Amino acid sequence: MPKPSLSWLLVLVPVSLVVDLATDQELATFLTAAGAIIPLAGLIGRGTDQLAMHAGPRVGGLLNATFGNVTELIISIFLITRGELDIVKASLVGSIIGNLLLVLGLSLLLGGLRHEEQSFSARSAAVHSSSMVLAVIGLVMPALFVLSAGKQGFAQREVVSVTVAAVLMALYVAALVFTLVTHEHLFRTPIQGERPEWSVRRALLVLLGATALVALESEILVGALEPALADLGLSKLFVGLIVVPVIGNAAEHSSAVAMALRNKVDVTLEIAIGSSTQIALFVAPVLVFISLAAGHPMDFVFDTFEVVAVGLSTLIVALISQDGRSNWLEGAQLVAAYAIMAISFFFVRTL
Amino acid sequence: MPKPSLSWLLVLVPVSLVVDLATDQELATFLTAAGAIIPLAGLIGRGTDQLAMHAGPRVGGLLNATFGNVTELIISIFLITRGELDIVKASLVGSIIGNLLLVLGLSLLLGGLRHEEQSFSARSAAVHSSSMVLAVIGLVMPALFVLSAGKQGFAQREVVSVTVAAVLMALYVAALVFTLVTHEHLFRTPIQGERPEWSVRRALLVLLGATALVALESEILVGALEPALADLGLSKLFVGLIVVPVIGNAAEHSSAVAMALRNKVDVTLEIAIGSSTQIALFVAPVLVFISLAAGHPMDFVFDTFEVVAVGLSTLIVALISQDGRSNWLEGAQLVAAYAIMAISFFFVRTL
Amino acid sequence: MPKPSLSWLLVLVPVSLVVDLATDQELATFLTAAGAIIPLAGLIGRGTDQLAMHAGPRVGGLLNATFGNVTELIISIFLITRGELDIVKASLVGSIIGNLLLVLGLSLLLGGLRHEEQSFSARSAAVHSSSMVLAVIGLVMPALFVLSAGKQGFAQREVVSVTVAAVLMALYVAALVFTLVTHEHLFRTPIQGERPEWSVRRALLVLLGATALVALESEILVGALEPALADLGLSKLFVGLIVVPVIGNAAEHSSAVAMALRNKVDVTLEIAIGSSTQIALFVAPVLVFISLAAGHPMDFVFDTFEVVAVGLSTLIVALISQDGRSNWLEGAQLVAAYAIMAISFFFVRTL
Repeated sequence: MPKPSLSWLLVLVPVSLVVDLATDQELATFLTAAGAIIPLAGLIGRGTDQLAMHAGPRVGGLLNATFGNVTELIISIFLITRGELDIVKASLVGSIIGNLLLVLGLSLLLGGLRHEEQSFSARSAAVHSSSMVLAVIGLVMPALFVLSAGKQGFAQREVVSVTVAAVLMALYVAALVFTLVTHEHLFRTPIQGERPEWSVRRALLVLLGATALVALESEILVGALEPALADLGLSKLFVGLIVVPVIGNAAEHSSAVAMALRNKVDVTLEIAIGSSTQIALFVAPVLVFISLAAGHPMDFVFDTFEVVAVGLSTLIVALISQDGRSNWLEGAQLVAAYAIMAISFFFVRTL
Repeated sequence: MPKPSLSWLLVLVPVSLVVDLATDQELATFLTAAGAIIPLAGLIGRGTDQLAMHAGPRVGGLLNATFGNVTELIISIFLITRGELDIVKASLVGSIIGNLLLVLGLSLLLGGLRHEEQSFSARSAAVHSSSMVLAVIGLVMPALFVLSAGKQGFAQREVVSVTVAAVLMALYVAALVFTLVTHEHLFRTPIQGERPEWSVRRALLVLLGATALVALESEILVGALEPALADLGLSKLFVGLIVVPVIGNAAEHSSAVAMALRNKVDVTLEIAIGSSTQIALFVAPVLVFISLAAGHPMDFVFDTFEVVAVGLSTLIVALISQDGRSNWLEGAQLVAAYAIMAISFFFVRTL
Repeated sequence: MPKPSLSWLLVLVPVSLVVDLATDQELATFLTAAGAIIPLAGLIGRGTDQLAMHAGPRVGGLLNATFGNVTELIISIFLITRGELDIVKASLVGSIIGNLLLVLGLSLLLGGLRHEEQSFSARSAAVHSSSMVLAVIGLVMPALFVLSAGKQGFAQREVVSVTVAAVLMALYVAALVFTLVTHEHLFRTPIQGERPEWSVRRALLVLLGATALVALESEILVGALEPALADLGLSKLFVGLIVVPVIGNAAEHSSAVAMALRNKVDVTLEIAIGSSTQIALFVAPVLVFISLAAGHPMDFVFDTFEVVAVGLSTLIVALISQDGRSNWLEGAQLVAAYAIMAISFFFVRTL
């Protein structure tokens, strides 16, 4: 993994604390906290990678599969405790389409400009594609249920939500068993061979410290959210779909692009599509359960807009990735799809 | 074909008759009649297979293509004569998604646990996939027509329904001509080489006898349906989508799984996906015409819920089957998709 | 390119002028003008091809990519100046599904009846497929935006429309750069080797003359549209979706079929799918800008019916074309899909 050039943003950690405590500039608080989370998320990713290298491919894969989206998870938990359930859902959807379209698209575009054609494991991509289609089914059916069911109460929504979430998590575990245990030999382990730069102790300390700071900054960020939105004139939907995911994924984003430039598209796909399936099949269901425990129950019923956006993103990525080859045009098409969605989201003001 | 171990359920044939005639336990009548149909459907399937082996691949294929879902057809006709058109439609949809997701999923899951990777003819699967997409178009357009068309009368609905049904049947015949006549050599004929165990006479007698008994049990089943539903607390939609198809397909189900365990996934696909295309392109259109003749005209306008379920099932099966290889994870994903749909259907109470 | 046998229809050019000026038979005017446009569109296509052969593959490809649907463009502009924006949108959609399903379907059906299996570049087809999926995203998101957004004014609709149109046009240019410049060697240039029959001068004169006459006939056609519709009892939606595209594409249609019969399916695909992507990513966006300039601003918000029709057409073509092989059954399936859509459209009377 390349050293992220975002490290200098770490200066925003103390700055955001000062701004939050010493002033009542909510917009400045929001922006500095958001800026501070970007390099911290990068440190969490780097710490996880280093630990994974020490742990070997199987446990390492499990580590990445569990901590890969810990930043999104933390921000979401703080949003849930404030009852901002719609923003949480929007940010989950935004994270999925951001990874599938923007991160993957920019990677393939820039990688494809340097290399005429890049190749990757079509089989790996197919596992991710079918996982994403399953996630889409998990998004569509409860949404349709709510639209179709005549009289349905809160309890029924919750039962459907919790059961669907449990099925998706079971499939996430199944996909891990498949790629890490029963069919491990079929999947290239791109990290293999690279040697860790950090000791286990150092990696653990960085991981813990960065996670704690992300939690701190997330609380500040979420606290300043409402007034900052008012200042910026942005809708909650847009912030959830576009702004929060960009903050949480900036570090992953730069890794994915760097890997594509080094012609390691398999790693790019693992970061981009893998992250999306992780959010859809693991983070989102976990949040359903956490929200229940936190007393702010979040159902698994997403807006039509959101469901369709995830469905179309999955479709175009499945289509583009099935031949195991990529080029700059495919990258440009993904970025264009993201642009079309972002433009449409920008003007929707239902939240 | 293995001898179905469901044969002992045949004892329910006389039991159901006794319960129906001698008691007014509607729930017991419903359950015993349902249980009796399962082995009878198996006998119909076995009789058809034996006849097909005598008849050679071409006529045999035609026999299977015509009598493959005769149980569903008979139950549906009795439902139509009682005016239960919504249950008929739901059971058609349930049969399609049951075959595509549950039957195929369990087969690939169990087959994949025994064999690391199983292979099948991607070309055969592709013919079925495109047939299913066509069926989806045939389901979507009339449904959208009803949602979109401003003022539309009963006559217009019927004209659209009958014409779409005729187009789908024409395509079913075209696919038969393709696989049995013009491009026969491209399709493996898995039965070929197996020798029939029954004489033609015996196969015909079993086929006729089992069909007559299915008709008898179907009448009993349909007659006890309404009160049994009330006792069980199930919605008509759920019974149509989940319960009726399970009864009608149990025998096929066990054959499909047995074939996957014996690593003959081509036969499994033929049973599972082939049965779905047969219902979508042949049984459903035939019922439109039969219902017209029976004076209870059933249109070809399905619920959004049902159309989307068939569409998503087709999509995930097309995606998973296109590489001509399967493994246990793909099977698990199909079963999970079925579970998500069944959960959502369970709580919808629009019928 | 074969000499189109539609040439004798050119006699309708003077006839339509006489009928328009000398009588007030609006239906006759409509039908003769429609009939006159068919061979003129063929001449435009032939002139463009001849010029393209002189210009070499790169500039030739650009010529085809720009003038390929000039007839549709001209008819649309006259419709826009009369404020018939719904017919324009319907005719764009109709042209896309007509090319994807009817033109391609008939070509593969007839070609497949003569040749057992035909092959083509799967890579070329994949570029078109992903372009069409992008176009579908460009159709879906604004439509969903309008359905979802609470209060949205004319200005917001226009901003979304114009931006989406700009993104689609940018991607059209990107796809041209990809196929004609950066990855030219991957794409077969089927015209290569054929020698032009016309001189540059003759080709230019025919092109200019036919374009001028198409403009003249289009004005006559559009002027007689409303009364002719009333006489024929057809809805505007049906005329836009089915009648106008058939007029504009008849010549292309016969070329595509002729090429499939000569076993040059790559040219057929280029004509049929290429024409669809051109309309979706170039003609439709251009019309958004032209309509703004003309003072009859047309947004990029299509009817659910239209969006779904394009989406399903794209899906079935993507599925059928991905293996680089075709046969008569696939052609029949596309034609059947078109028939189902046409039947449903026929009865919708929302316009």
